[in-house]
Amino acid sequence: MSRDLRALFDPRSVAILGASNDPAKWGNRLALGALRGENARSVYLVNRNGGEILDRPAYASLADLPEPPELVVLSVPAEGFEEAVEASLAAGAKALVGITTGLGETGADGRAREAAIVERVRDAGAVLLGPNCLGIFDAATGLDLGWSELQGGALGLISQSGNLALELALLAEDYGLGFSRFASLGNQADLEAGELVTSLIDHEPTRVIALYCEDFRDGRAFTRAAQNAVEAGKPVILLTVGAGEVSAQAARSHTGALVSSETAVEAACRASGMERVRSPRELIDLAQAELARVRPRGRRVVIVGDGGGHGIIASDVAAAEGLELPPLSDELQGRIAPHLPAAAPTRNPVDFAGAGEQFLTIFEDVTRIILESGEVDAALVTGYFGGYSEFSDEFRAEETEVALGMARAAADTERALVVQSMYPRSPSLVALREAGVPVYREIEAAAWALARLANQAERSPGGVPELPAPADGPIPDGYWEARELVASAGIELPPAFRATNAGEARSAAVELGYPVAVKALGLLHKSDAGGVALGIADEEALGDALASMATLSVEGYSVERMASVDDGAELIAGCIRDPRFGPIVLVGIGGIYAELLDDTAVALAPVDAVQAETLIRSLRGAAILEGARGRAALDVPAAAEAVAALSQLAASRPDLAEIEINPLLVTPSGALALDARVLSGENGADAR
Amino acid sequence: MSRDLRALFDPRSVAILGASNDPAKWGNRLALGALRGENARSVYLVNRNGGEILDRPAYASLADLPEPPELVVLSVPAEGFEEAVEASLAAGAKALVGITTGLGETGADGRAREAAIVERVRDAGAVLLGPNCLGIFDAATGLDLGWSELQGGALGLISQSGNLALELALLAEDYGLGFSRFASLGNQADLEAGELVTSLIDHEPTRVIALYCEDFRDGRAFTRAAQNAVEAGKPVILLTVGAGEVSAQAARSHTGALVSSETAVEAACRASGMERVRSPRELIDLAQAELARVRPRGRRVVIVGDGGGHGIIASDVAAAEGLELPPLSDELQGRIAPHLPAAAPTRNPVDFAGAGEQFLTIFEDVTRIILESGEVDAALVTGYFGGYSEFSDEFRAEETEVALGMARAAADTERALVVQSMYPRSPSLVALREAGVPVYREIEAAAWALARLANQAERSPGGVPELPAPADGPIPDGYWEARELVASAGIELPPAFRATNAGEARSAAVELGYPVAVKALGLLHKSDAGGVALGIADEEALGDALASMATLSVEGYSVERMASVDDGAELIAGCIRDPRFGPIVLVGIGGIYAELLDDTAVALAPVDAVQAETLIRSLRGAAILEGARGRAALDVPAAAEAVAALSQLAASRPDLAEIEINPLLVTPSGALALDARVLSGENGADAR
Repeated sequence: MSRDLRALFDPRSVAILGASNDPAKWGNRLALGALRGENARSVYLVNRNGGEILDRPAYASLADLPEPPELVVLSVPAEGFEEAVEASLAAGAKALVGITTGLGETGADGRAREAAIVERVRDAGAVLLGPNCLGIFDAATGLDLGWSELQGGALGLISQSGNLALELALLAEDYGLGFSRFASLGNQADLEAGELVTSLIDHEPTRVIALYCEDFRDGRAFTRAAQNAVEAGKPVILLTVGAGEVSAQAARSHTGALVSSETAVEAACRASGMERVRSPRELIDLAQAELARVRPRGRRVVIVGDGGGHGIIASDVAAAEGLELPPLSDELQGRIAPHLPAAAPTRNPVDFAGAGEQFLTIFEDVTRIILESGEVDAALVTGYFGGYSEFSDEFRAEETEVALGMARAAADTERALVVQSMYPRSPSLVALREAGVPVYREIEAAAWALARLANQAERSPGGVPELPAPADGPIPDGYWEARELVASAGIELPPAFRATNAGEARSAAVELGYPVAVKALGLLHKSDAGGVALGIADEEALGDALASMATLSVEGYSVERMASVDDGAELIAGCIRDPRFGPIVLVGIGGIYAELLDDTAVALAPVDAVQAETLIRSLRGAAILEGARGRAALDVPAAAEAVAALSQLAASRPDLAEIEINPLLVTPSGALALDARVLSGENGADAR
Repeated sequence: MSRDLRALFDPRSVAILGASNDPAKWGNRLALGALRGENARSVYLVNRNGGEILDRPAYASLADLPEPPELVVLSVPAEGFEEAVEASLAAGAKALVGITTGLGETGADGRAREAAIVERVRDAGAVLLGPNCLGIFDAATGLDLGWSELQGGALGLISQSGNLALELALLAEDYGLGFSRFASLGNQADLEAGELVTSLIDHEPTRVIALYCEDFRDGRAFTRAAQNAVEAGKPVILLTVGAGEVSAQAARSHTGALVSSETAVEAACRASGMERVRSPRELIDLAQAELARVRPRGRRVVIVGDGGGHGIIASDVAAAEGLELPPLSDELQGRIAPHLPAAAPTRNPVDFAGAGEQFLTIFEDVTRIILESGEVDAALVTGYFGGYSEFSDEFRAEETEVALGMARAAADTERALVVQSMYPRSPSLVALREAGVPVYREIEAAAWALARLANQAERSPGGVPELPAPADGPIPDGYWEARELVASAGIELPPAFRATNAGEARSAAVELGYPVAVKALGLLHKSDAGGVALGIADEEALGDALASMATLSVEGYSVERMASVDDGAELIAGCIRDPRFGPIVLVGIGGIYAELLDDTAVALAPVDAVQAETLIRSLRGAAILEGARGRAALDVPAAAEAVAALSQLAASRPDLAEIEINPLLVTPSGALALDARVLSGENGADAR
């Protein structure tokens, strides 16, 4: 859904319902903020007690206003919310901002009330932000309802927490960054995060979109909106805690390590090109980077500074962030050496060895020569630069000139430039930021941000796949049925027979040929309970295995041909259904080191075989599949076919919460599901 | 070596040799700084041109001074350095600070000159700092030679880079931290980092010791000094370089340093309890934490704040740093609930749900109740606290009272308290810091620092082992000889025969029993070259294997009984010899995922079997050895015996640069070296 939000962010008239003289009340802050925009629109303060508010006559009712209020801000008690909404719509409002708390966030009753309200609002062709929100801000239209501390700027911010928005604003000040728009999300009864993201795509002053979000509502619509924004050249940065964390936690403790709402958010980021961050500081650090005039097209970086210690520390930090520090060619070193003292290192990092103080223009000259060479994608200037301005007015003027010269060098060569300085507030660096060069105080922030941009250059969003039509089918109530479901999707499993007693098991083993594996049926956690025996070499061993399972009150056995894992590798393939983002497919390195490796890749399901192969090859451990240490290359395309088939199956079955193949054995000649597990959505019944 | 450094840091008289009127010269800065201490000592400015410097008569020669200068600072050209040192010693100097550049850092000739100078200095019973250093600072004695921008405080700083020291000082200001002493290390011709660390142990104003160091000189002496400091209650924080190849290379060219491997530095930290950091910012973040009045005794943390978003973000960040967030007991939640609004979450994180603004004392009351319960080791207060002071003078006074109340609660309960605030410079938080509570601006810094303290609580330094007497022995010149060397240390290997042709190999296989492994001898990289065949099941397979190796121009074969890895796990065990820290022992998880897991632990060699077992069990993947996923527990003590024996062997053979057993197979009943490799120190000849 994408509606016209002009009345919300640029209303011709605004009414504050619940305006107040009491500085302790939000209605006072809203009224003060609204009045700051009085030159742009009519402002009406409404309070049922009438009288004067902030030295102006207050209206006792919306019905008394001389014109329809395009936007009404509702700061009223919860019990009067419906009445206030009705009055607003009756007065002709096209946008409502619900400050009121005590509705959807309190439980099912509140959510039912909200649903009814939203129906009324939509019927009237209006939109509602909130309720339980803190207001909105629009720098260009002078609309400031609740957020007087925001500076204008290029960030469009959507936040589900007022305090976090405040912290973001304070952190942004360090970098001279401000906000184009801010919307406090609240309960998202009507307007959801996705629709607000969409509204920012065509909002010219917004250059970067930032979100703090705890609940994504329609996660796929949100992801599509983010993808559209990214494709339109507006980076989206997401700070979140993971939708459905509590339910995911419960599922995790029940089924093991692979389930996580982190997974869903990661899949949404992969699909949309949205960037996930883990703290307010990271959000602002990245926002500054996203605003860089020139972005790196790769991860090759030269480190430049005056003072060896900084360059060396920067090298370690940059390498740890995954940046590459190629040694500069002899030819290039030969061209920069004449600018530097005799002993100055020119390999990378380049150290001016104290010459910067005498010849400040070295910074510009050397940086330009290196960027022009094409041997790197970015220059990272580190350490003292910015501090020369402290010496004198002359130095300040010269340093600013040199800084702008470096910015020009970056623009001319279309190579990125990032600066870390111990004097980040230096006038020369303020000028540099204004010229589109990110400036950080800490080397880890500078290197991290540059690495994030380099990562982005290497990726393209996978997109949000369409869901297949929901299919019916029996819900597997055990391991055997889970096997059959997986097999029905066209995924290969080892030949197996179901046996109800020892005699049938022996016959099955003879039919299959030894060695075999035996799995007890009817156990909730068959492996932990001792209900799995692998590599059974002969009839005697089979007898032992069956004897040891005899005490487990099993419902029979699956007798399977034993696959040799010697020249293969174990993957994990699984699908979970997130309440917000729908089906998610996951692949990972399996085996006994799986948990330790924590090497997984995820995507919104379903994926086709090509996408699945990309996913598998994106694993850190992908080299293992490609024939490391003298081993034969494994049949990754076959594994990808299995993953794709599993994802199609999962996407078509909303009644299944989780399907997992662990291990998926990849051999030089195929892929084989050695075990399967299904968890139904309704009752959590576990089919192992 | 630990000499009296009183004359260096608290001289009764100081002479500046090379004092200057030219503000662009360091001799000017040194003179200005020295004069600031004139109330504490005699200051003599010396310049061979005589005349006036800074409005004082300058002496043309040290011989002209009216008294012997206890400390002489030498800011003279390199060619006159020896002469200046002689003149200083002749004048009676007991301490020298060599500012002069162009000596040891330029190469072997310069180092030879330094060695001769040091001999003269030591013969005269004096000490020399530098040369190629930038000066010293001592807050208590008012000695300020070159470092006028340092604030007094509790950090003792030793640095091999002037600019990094400056950055540290600027970052420290944020936290109101200053410096008790500073020494610029320079070339460490005489005074080394270790001796300076030792001098800070008894220096009362110094509470935390911080180092930036590129070259550790006598690494074991340095490590012992750090260990002594840590044991004396003075934490040591180390910023160093060489994590990556690029930085190691750069450091070598920066100071001519012998850069130690990452492994060696890690081993030194483990031995001493010294804390490694990767950036100036981390150093200062950790220094603030080390100054905390109460340190956590474990990693259980409660997160407290007013505003849910902050608490949830903090939970994610704290968990990512390895802190534990136990749910508070029902009983405890029952006791804090009455202080909070009805819907406020009390499980952990605890969220005041907006009540803080009305009842600021909640912060103190709730924090105290939780800390008194003993259910957590620390409280992490996050978000808005500090911002209430912005409202009014009354709020400021109350918030400061509440802050100090929280500090008292921490002191009374001996539980740690750390605060993250978006208003870190608030007067209430300045007061809180002065009360010994670390306050950070970013949640990641707060959680990281708290986690570092928690890690420290769980560890005790391993100590610096004595080296065994150097032993002689042949240097292995091939795989077979490397096997024999390892076997001579008492480490078990699979039975094997050396065979010079196919016939001998067949006999050996029969003798050993199939399956066997065959390794070609005389190849530099036998595995990569195809000179290793494993799991040879019968004579036919043996013939094939030998045929495929026939083209490799080998010097015979090692035919070995094949060990089954099925119910075991592969470790890597190795020793390297660092030029500064000596022999280092390393254990790690092996196998095809070894590189990906990057799971290693290191220690200064030699280690005994008990220490080796601790080392092995400290691996992230140690659970694999203890019988994960239904496997039998492995014989870790046997693996530890092998590692200890290897470390003893390596420590006694300085002529061996590297010894490696990879894999060291650990089974339920023993440990077996399946392959061995030795690299000699002299020529790098590789014995595989």
